[in-house]
Order: sequence, then C-alpha cells, then structure tokens
Amino acid sequence: MKTPQLLNFAFDKWVQGEGNLADIASAIDGSLVARTGSGGLDFGGMLRHAREVGGPALRKLTFHERARIIKGLGLAIMARKEELYDLSYQTGATRKDGWIDIEGGAGTLFSFSSKGRRELPDAHVLLDGAVEPLSKSGSFIGQHIYTPLQGAAVHINAFNFPVWGMLEKLAPTFLAGMPAIVKPASSTAYLCEAAVRVMVESGLLPPGSLQLIVGGVGDLFDHLTGQDVVSFTGSASTALKLRSHPVVQRESVKFVAEQDSLNASLLGPDAAPGTPEFDLFVKEVVNEMTAKAGQKCTAIRRAMAPVEYLDAVEAAIRDRLAATKVGDPRDKESRMGALVSTSQRDDVRAQIGKLTAAGARIVAGNPDASPGIAGGAFMEPILLRSDDPWSNSAVHDVEAFGPVSTVMPYRDMADAIALANRGMGSLALSLFTYSPEAAREFIQGAAAYHGRMLVLNRDNGAESTGHGSPLPVLVHGGPGRAGGSEEMGGVRGVKHYMQRTAIQSTPAMIAAISEQYIPGGPKHEILQHPFRRRMSELTIGDTLKTKSRTVTLEDIEHFAHFTGDTFYAHMDDEAAKASPIFEGRVAHGYLILSFAAGLFVDPDPGPVLANTGLENLRFLTPLYPDDSMRVELTVRSKSLKSEDTGVVRWAVEIFNQNDELVATYDLLTENVP
Amino acid sequence: MKTPQLLNFAFDKWVQGEGNLADIASAIDGSLVARTGSGGLDFGGMLRHAREVGGPALRKLTFHERARIIKGLGLAIMARKEELYDLSYQTGATRKDGWIDIEGGAGTLFSFSSKGRRELPDAHVLLDGAVEPLSKSGSFIGQHIYTPLQGAAVHINAFNFPVWGMLEKLAPTFLAGMPAIVKPASSTAYLCEAAVRVMVESGLLPPGSLQLIVGGVGDLFDHLTGQDVVSFTGSASTALKLRSHPVVQRESVKFVAEQDSLNASLLGPDAAPGTPEFDLFVKEVVNEMTAKAGQKCTAIRRAMAPVEYLDAVEAAIRDRLAATKVGDPRDKESRMGALVSTSQRDDVRAQIGKLTAAGARIVAGNPDASPGIAGGAFMEPILLRSDDPWSNSAVHDVEAFGPVSTVMPYRDMADAIALANRGMGSLALSLFTYSPEAAREFIQGAAAYHGRMLVLNRDNGAESTGHGSPLPVLVHGGPGRAGGSEEMGGVRGVKHYMQRTAIQSTPAMIAAISEQYIPGGPKHEILQHPFRRRMSELTIGDTLKTKSRTVTLEDIEHFAHFTGDTFYAHMDDEAAKASPIFEGRVAHGYLILSFAAGLFVDPDPGPVLANTGLENLRFLTPLYPDDSMRVELTVRSKSLKSEDTGVVRWAVEIFNQNDELVATYDLLTENVP
Repeated sequence: MKTPQLLNFAFDKWVQGEGNLADIASAIDGSLVARTGSGGLDFGGMLRHAREVGGPALRKLTFHERARIIKGLGLAIMARKEELYDLSYQTGATRKDGWIDIEGGAGTLFSFSSKGRRELPDAHVLLDGAVEPLSKSGSFIGQHIYTPLQGAAVHINAFNFPVWGMLEKLAPTFLAGMPAIVKPASSTAYLCEAAVRVMVESGLLPPGSLQLIVGGVGDLFDHLTGQDVVSFTGSASTALKLRSHPVVQRESVKFVAEQDSLNASLLGPDAAPGTPEFDLFVKEVVNEMTAKAGQKCTAIRRAMAPVEYLDAVEAAIRDRLAATKVGDPRDKESRMGALVSTSQRDDVRAQIGKLTAAGARIVAGNPDASPGIAGGAFMEPILLRSDDPWSNSAVHDVEAFGPVSTVMPYRDMADAIALANRGMGSLALSLFTYSPEAAREFIQGAAAYHGRMLVLNRDNGAESTGHGSPLPVLVHGGPGRAGGSEEMGGVRGVKHYMQRTAIQSTPAMIAAISEQYIPGGPKHEILQHPFRRRMSELTIGDTLKTKSRTVTLEDIEHFAHFTGDTFYAHMDDEAAKASPIFEGRVAHGYLILSFAAGLFVDPDPGPVLANTGLENLRFLTPLYPDDSMRVELTVRSKSLKSEDTGVVRWAVEIFNQNDELVATYDLLTENVP
Repeated sequence: MKTPQLLNFAFDKWVQGEGNLADIASAIDGSLVARTGSGGLDFGGMLRHAREVGGPALRKLTFHERARIIKGLGLAIMARKEELYDLSYQTGATRKDGWIDIEGGAGTLFSFSSKGRRELPDAHVLLDGAVEPLSKSGSFIGQHIYTPLQGAAVHINAFNFPVWGMLEKLAPTFLAGMPAIVKPASSTAYLCEAAVRVMVESGLLPPGSLQLIVGGVGDLFDHLTGQDVVSFTGSASTALKLRSHPVVQRESVKFVAEQDSLNASLLGPDAAPGTPEFDLFVKEVVNEMTAKAGQKCTAIRRAMAPVEYLDAVEAAIRDRLAATKVGDPRDKESRMGALVSTSQRDDVRAQIGKLTAAGARIVAGNPDASPGIAGGAFMEPILLRSDDPWSNSAVHDVEAFGPVSTVMPYRDMADAIALANRGMGSLALSLFTYSPEAAREFIQGAAAYHGRMLVLNRDNGAESTGHGSPLPVLVHGGPGRAGGSEEMGGVRGVKHYMQRTAIQSTPAMIAAISEQYIPGGPKHEILQHPFRRRMSELTIGDTLKTKSRTVTLEDIEHFAHFTGDTFYAHMDDEAAKASPIFEGRVAHGYLILSFAAGLFVDPDPGPVLANTGLENLRFLTPLYPDDSMRVELTVRSKSLKSEDTGVVRWAVEIFNQNDELVATYDLLTENVP
C-alpha cells in the first residue's frame, strides 16, 4: 500500500506540499503512517486570503450564526468519530486517551456554541461592562465594546491532542469572527488533517475561514501584523523562538502561549494515610502519570506531601503503578499506550537522567525497559523521589514529558507554598485537603503562580473532572513558565480574538454602534403589544409605553399588610422623615415592581412564556403617596436558552409624574423564538 | 544657587546617584534646572525589596484599605499642588497643561479609590464572573478569582505628563496590591521626583511599596521574573528594545506598552461647512495641536475630511491657529508653551522634514521660527496637507511629536475606514458626525484598530471631555503601533497587576478562599436580626432563616387584581397547563419577591436604610397554590457607596416546602457602615 501524503488546505483547496517530505512513524510499531510537507505554499498569500476572504465572511455573521456553525462542526466530528479513533491509536493513544482528544474536542465546540448563544447577543458587537457616565446631563457617556480583530489567527498546536488541541483554539476564534490558519505538530498531523477534512466536508465553513499547513510555516511570520494573533501550544523553547520573532515584537502581534510546565499536586497537611484525601491524591497522581502516557501539559510532575507521610505516599503510588498494564492501545486491557515516537521516548529518558543526576532517586519503574510491541514507543511509568527539593533545582525546572513524576516532601504550609511557586508558573495545581483554612492559606499564597487550581476532597472527589482536564468554561494557561497567557474560559477566551475599544458618545450613537438599546437612546414605540410578538418579530429598541397609575397611601398600607413587609419607611411618616434618605413614607420597591408588571403585562397566552429573571435593578427616586408611575418597556437584546427557547432582555424604565426615573432594571423573559 | 541633584528613593530611603550625572535644562530658557543620575543603585536589590517587603505589606491590606491610601495620596498632591505647578512651568507647560498633569493625576487617584470601594469587595480576592456548575450535585464547581501578582511593577514613564503618567499607573498597581518601582523620563524627572516626595512625606505608603529611579535602570531587567510587570509609556523604538529583552521574553514577563501612535480625527460625510460638527472638528484639531504643545500620545496627527470639504477645513484650522499665542507658559495670555527641550524641537523639525519630503505641504506655520523666550524650546504650530494620502505613507508612519498635524482627504466611507486603519493601530480616534448610520459603519469597520473612539456632534460637543483625554474609567491603549496593551479602564486596569486563576472545588472551599459567601457554601445562622447590625458588625456568611408561609390561590387572585397583573399563567389553569413551562396556575414572581420581603424584613428603624437594588434574580421552580415558601438571607459581600454609606450584598434564597430553590437573587441595601 502506498503511504499517503497529507495535504495542506490553502485558499479553500487541498494542496500537496512540494519538495522534501517528512515521514511520520506509527507510535505502536514504528511503521510508516504518512508523509507530510508544506513546501511551495504561498504563506503570505494564505494570511491575505484569511484576512480578505475569511475575515469578512465571518464578520458578516452574528455571534449566534457563528455559534450554530461551531455546533455543526462538532456534530460532524461526532458523526465520523470512528475514522478518527482508528488514526488515533497510531499516535499511541488508548481509546480513553482518544476520547479526551476526539469527543473532548467536539464537546469543546458544543460548549462554546452554547455559551455563544446564551451569553453573547445575536449581534456583531459585544458590550463590555456597564455604561460609564461621563457628563452631567448624560449626553456624553462611555461604553466599552469588543469587535473582531481583522487579521488571521495562526494556531500552532502540540502533538499530544491533535483534535482537541485544534478545536479548543478554533471554537473561540470562529465565535469571535476571526479566520484561522492551523499548523499541527508533524508527528500526529495525520489525525489533525483527518479532522480538518471532516470539517471541510461538512460544508459549514465560510470560504477563507480555515486553512491548514501540514509542515513548516515558511516565511509566514514575516507577514504578520498587529491585527493577527498567534496562539501556540508546546514547549517553552519553541514558544521563546516564535514570540521573539522580530515581526511579532515590532508589530505587537498578540501572542498566546500555553507551555508545558512543572505542575504540582499537594497532599494537604490534614490528609494523613487512611483519609479519603490521601487515597484520592494517590489515585490522581497515578492517573496523571499514565493517561496519554503522561504526555499532557497539565500532568502532575511534582507530587508534594508532608514529610511524615512521604514514605506512605511513595509506597501507595508504587503499588498502584505496578498494576498499570502498558501495551498496545487497541487492546482494551491496556491502561497505558505508547509515547508518540521513539525519539520522544529518547527525550524522556534523557530528562530522567538529568533528574537523577541532580539527586532524585528512581523508586518505581525501569526507564530503559521497552514493554509493548517491538518498534513501538512504549515505556514503563517512572516514579522519582527527591528528599531535598530545595537543593535539587532540576525537579522544578526539568520536565520529562512522559509517564514521569517526582514525589517530594514539604515541612509546613509556608514551605508548601514556596515549593509550589518554585515551579515559576504552572498550568494546573491540585490540593487534597478537607480543611478550609488550609485551602485559603495555600490558594491565596500560590494562586498568583497558577492558572487553574483544584481543591479536592471527600465531598467532591467523585464528581471531580480531575487535575489534568482543562474545561472549556474555565481558563487554561498560566503565568511565567506556563507562557503567561490564557485560552478558553468561555467568553473570556473569545475576547482574545477581539479588540476592546472604549466608545465615547451619546446614547443614540452607542446604541447604533452596538446594535443594542442603550438607556437614553432612541426607542420605537410600537402599537401592537410586544408580548404578542415572537422573538424574531421583535426589533431592538421596540418600546411599549404604558398608561400611568397613581400609588396611594391606601395601596402602600394594603401592600404592607398583605405581604407582611411593614418596614418603617413605608409605615411611619415620622421615622421615614428621620432617615437620611426619605422625606416621608414611601412605596415599597416590590410594590412598584408589582404595579409595573400590572401596567406592562399582556395577560393572554402568547409567545412570551414566562418572566424568568431580573437584573441590575436600581431604585433611583422614592415614590411617595399620590405620586404616579408609568413604564417604558424596551427590547434591549435577544439570546437563546436552547434551540427552541429564546430569551429577551427588556430594559424597564419606571418614571414618576415628573418624568424622573423611579427605577430601572433588565427583565428577562422566556420567549418563542 | 547650587543646582539641585535629584534623589532616588530606594529601600525606603532617599539615595544620591553616583558617578556621571545628567543635566536637565529648563524648557523655557535653557537654564539648568537639576542634575540627575542613578549610578551605584542595587537594582536587583530594589526588585527584591519590592517583592519581599512592599508586596507582603500591600497584600495584607484589603482592596478598601488600599483604596483609602490612594485617596490620601491624591489629597496630599492637591494640598501641595502649587509647588508642583512651579516646577511644571519649567517643562514648558502652561497652567492648563499643568492642570491636566497635576490635578488630572490626583483625579485619577480619586477615581480609582472610588471604584475600588464601590466595585471591589472589602477583601483580598476578587471574583471574576459567575460560578460555573461543573457537576450534577453541585459539589464540584468552578470560580475564577484574581489575586495580586507577587512581583514588582516597573513603571517606565514618558516625559510629557510626569505626574499624571506616574499616577495613572500607580493607582491600579497599588489597588491590585503590587509594589512599584518608578522610572521617569529624565527631561522632566524633577517634577516626578517632587510628586514622589509629596507622597512619601504623606506617610501613607507601606514600606517597600514605592521606589524611584531618577536615571538609567542599569541591570534591573536582568532580574525580572514572570511575577513582575513592566508598564511602559513612550516611543515605539524604546518599547521594542525593552520588550525584546531576553529576560522579558524568556520569563513571560507581563509587558504593557502604551506607544505614541498616529491618531486620526475624521470629519463625517454629513458634516459640511456650516454644521456644528464642522466647527467642533476644527476646534478639536487645533486644541490637540496646541495643548501641551502637541506632545501628547493621543494628539491628532491625521485630520481627515471628505475631499470636497478639505479646502474649507484647511482654511478654518489655519485661521484658528493664527490666533494661538505661543510664549512663556507662566504668562496667562499664552495659549501654547514650549516643547520640553530644544533637542525635542530639533526632532520635531526633522520629522516635519520627512513628511514634506514625502509630499506633504506646509499650509500653516514656519517650522524654523523660534518664538517665545530666547534659549527656550518654543515653536509655531505646523499644519501640513497631503492630497494623496495613499501615495504618501509617511503621513501614516512618521510622527512629529509636537504641535503638528496633517490634513488629508477621503473619498467615501470605505476609504475613510481604510485610511484610519492605515495607522496600524492607534490610541484614540474621533469622528464628527450626526448620522447614526455613518457612526455604526465607521466604528464597526475601524474599532479593531483603535483603543478609544469618540463620536462627537451637536448633542454632546459641549459636554465632551475631548479627543485627547484618557479617562480613568475608560481603557487607554491600543493595538499594533500603539503597543497592543491597555491601561486604566477602572477595575479592568487593576487586573493587569493580578493573576486570574480558575478554582475548582466545593462551594465551602471556594467561599473560604474568596472571603465571600458562595451559594451552597457554609452559613452561620444568627439569632439577632441582621437588620439590627451595622455593616461592620455583619460577617460574611451571617444568615437569617425565616419562618415559612403558605401561598394560597386566594393570595394569587388577590395580588393579580390588586396589581393588575392578570397574566394567564396566574389566572387560567387550563392555559397555564397548556404552556410548556407550568403544570397549572402559578404564583407571580413579584408576589414571591414581595412575600419574601415580608418574611425577612425587620420593620423598625435601624442601620439598614433602604433596599436600593437587586441583581441576578432567577426564578427556578414555579410556586403553585398551597405551596409554602421560606427565605434564607445571607451576607454575601460588603462595599461602600461613600465614606458614610455602606452597601451590603445579600444572597437571598427562597425555598419551597420540599427545600427546592424557588428563586435566588442578590439584594442590595444601603447601610450604616
């Protein structure tokens, strides 16, 4: 059988690389899986294609339209996942490892799609924060907005999760409205190429929105500008090379780096042998050593325990490792597959050598053993022990990117914090404790050095998603050695592909720019009651103006006795006058809200199903007996709870007889879309 | 009189620099103002002092305690402002220019102090966003937090605003809980040193929190780590040199750059001569050319107008410039003072030469004229015109950092957007238009290239704070050529000095870590009603558990007729059952809120003054006739509205008889502190 040549996807076409090709060997048996190369591509032209074709096509869509494409891509991956699993085994991954990569990748698309429709408006501009008043009369206000960057996102991915690693970057990029150029690591590029093929064949991608380079990136970096983003996952040394590129520096190109780091896990001072926390810790350390053969940027490299428990920790981990079967990842009995390549295994062995040379002892596993299939990149998991981690800097600085971890003692909490922080920045840290005081002291002392921290114990161990799993709704990244960047984190991750701009103008202009109603901005009074319209029939700025009603002292008395809320400000004129806020008895806030609903609600069944919530309520002017009130109800923005449930956010403004604002709030209703 | 030597402030002591000193000349007449130098300082030791003494001292304080120090520093500056004005004149600044620098600087401290007390909790940890549910039972949740970085902030400031430029960086740094080392530009270091002296002598600064280097920074950069922040304001070339430093790159040091950029102002297509927008535009261009002698990083360098109005624009600007008196900044008649130095003037003249060589014509002013006082750095404002800005790239790339601007035409909106964006990233852009459509098209097309944009017209011209004024509540910074960073923006700017960490744990652990009540976390039931306690007597987690009350069909009927809210879901059992949400008639949401208040309110006068607002209300489980409800009211966090008005945020949880959550919300009350 002829070895397949991977193709690049450039200018919306599949393109064969020219010139020298690189061979990719199977992790299982060393056989040739594919050849790859990107020679002859016009890299500058690809950037222009992304900027001039892909960007405009994506920016034309709203956040919700982009979110639907992202969901469709996830469904396409799931529909053809078995093709991807077949290739995934060749990378050394077990079915469980592949599940994280393939189905975890699709799940990330689903998560971003859902966040996009729930948390972003069906518009082109994202508002950031509240209006900032900048003037007395309100004619000059500030509002921060996010708009998509107008360049290309260049994604440079690591070998270990060729599908997830691509999709966790693509989802926020597309949702933001930016096109992407993906460059996978060569050793597993065949799996990434197959996933790109699935997405391209789905027919969902706008032209120019996705391109693929299966080989070197040539002179691509020479053509970057300040509107482009480079998002890199991999080693610190490659990150340093790329971020130091003169064009990246000169043009202030956004550079997101997620680098391997020496993540730690800590057994709490209270977690003696025999406690649930001790057992959870041991299990987690072993999981992180063996899942994906330890080739995870979040894996636990440093396992720390109180000095008096260290022997017990070592013994428990060793016992558990002894039961871990290493072998053919296609075999269901295998708990750990192969490393990605024999050269990666060589590298891991060399790093272990550095750790032992610096004083760490191997206490489980033989690094020179080659279990599994001949020609494959299998190795045994290796546990090291360092009894004096302050005199062995290698354990904090040298990473063996494989099934390798080092146990080490700490003396007290201050020592534990200092040791954790000695990693100089990590992606993930887990602490096993049942003591809130220990958790507070440790996390407040170490959070500045870590991107994600788990506190695990008997109450959440069963439900935990684990130390090593980045989640789409939480930020992934870390300071210092971990690269100093963030990815994902729901909408936070989308913003990395957008520019925040402070806009200063009138409410009317800001409403026009942001495609949302802004208080003080224009309203369109409509004659048909808005509760009679489906969400799609409502336009931003549509307003119902109600008639007015008087609030009498009798109403206030009645409401007080009916509800039981006899707060003095409503009931006792003298006491109310004595308060620093009121000039006499005032109507209850909840009476005002209730009367407001009485004024604006249309009673009959219709496309508005329920009032589900309320936000940002502020009572601004007290309503005194015999004052009157009226309401203006305006469509502010629209989003979705699910495909068939819309959410309308209404700006509610309650005025008194002098047109002073009594109260404002956002009302949320569940609507037929 | 002996020329004073400026002192460094290192290790909490005033220290004289050794070795070669630099002379600083007056901008007004060239006389010697001061000598300066930092030879002999232990720069690595200063970083350690900041990290080991300043950081811990600041981190021990809460956000509110830090905010009070910041306010005190502002008051100290205001109390001694005349000393600072006297020095400010020597920099060439008029009283108005000095007002921006000195009182604008103090105002920035006040703004951050106020934001800190209103928008940040009286705690050590800042929550970011809502809880992310990560598990079915709720034992495993996610919460993002911000904690202070544990390094030092190194502030490298520009010459033009020696006080404001320092304070706009110090305010968010201190509020975050980070110590700072300030390095002013030499040419105006005497004014910065005087302002530091005022702050030090106020006695408010914790030890190690502020250090000053009046000279070169020596080997300081060699000692930076990933916990430090460098915040730079100045030229693109210096920024490039600093951000490319190998240690900054290798350690992923946070690098904030705010670089001079070629900011644009645009006359809208609708703003013909004779419109208010035309007049506002002309006035603003001239203001930005002459304020601070045009030495502002936000100044308008490119003034764009529809091709048919360009002659009128040129004539109007020329007329207005002709009336601008240049001269001694101490003279009240002077509208424009001197540049900071004669070498700065030489540089501006050289840049004008580049612009004219590339095809721009001088249409107002003589660049070789030297008005004002002999020996001073005065020059005339210079207006240039470029009729073909697409063939003269210098007008978009070459900045003359002085009283210089170039007018140029655009053909249509697409051309205007492209020209604005041709600046490759700017700090500020203003658009003068009365058309919402033009504003939307332009801003959506150009926002990705700009950090701050103003849309000005007849409705807000009088209240506008102007094109060139960064405001503490809005972000300052811009993409690409402007440095790709942000400063200020209220709490946004504070976060640049903090690390965001995703925490995964139980609600109890997250409550302990974040010093806030987290739903699902521990509560302390208190016997005394919490409305009887002053804010300072309330503890996070204090809870009132109310008795239960039944909600009858009669209550619902009564409420409907009383308020007028006869929505079918409350009134018509058949119709309610037919809805996809309800199983029959349900209680009104506002009835539930009102009864809840009836259950938890303590009626007598006391330290709770009023219910001022409500946030994040969600109705979760419908309440059917004859269901019962009870409330748990828990202190969630505390902040301040003013010195003598506290704001307590209460978590309100309403349960039915099965202990299912009916509704949750945050209640805001105004309290006696």
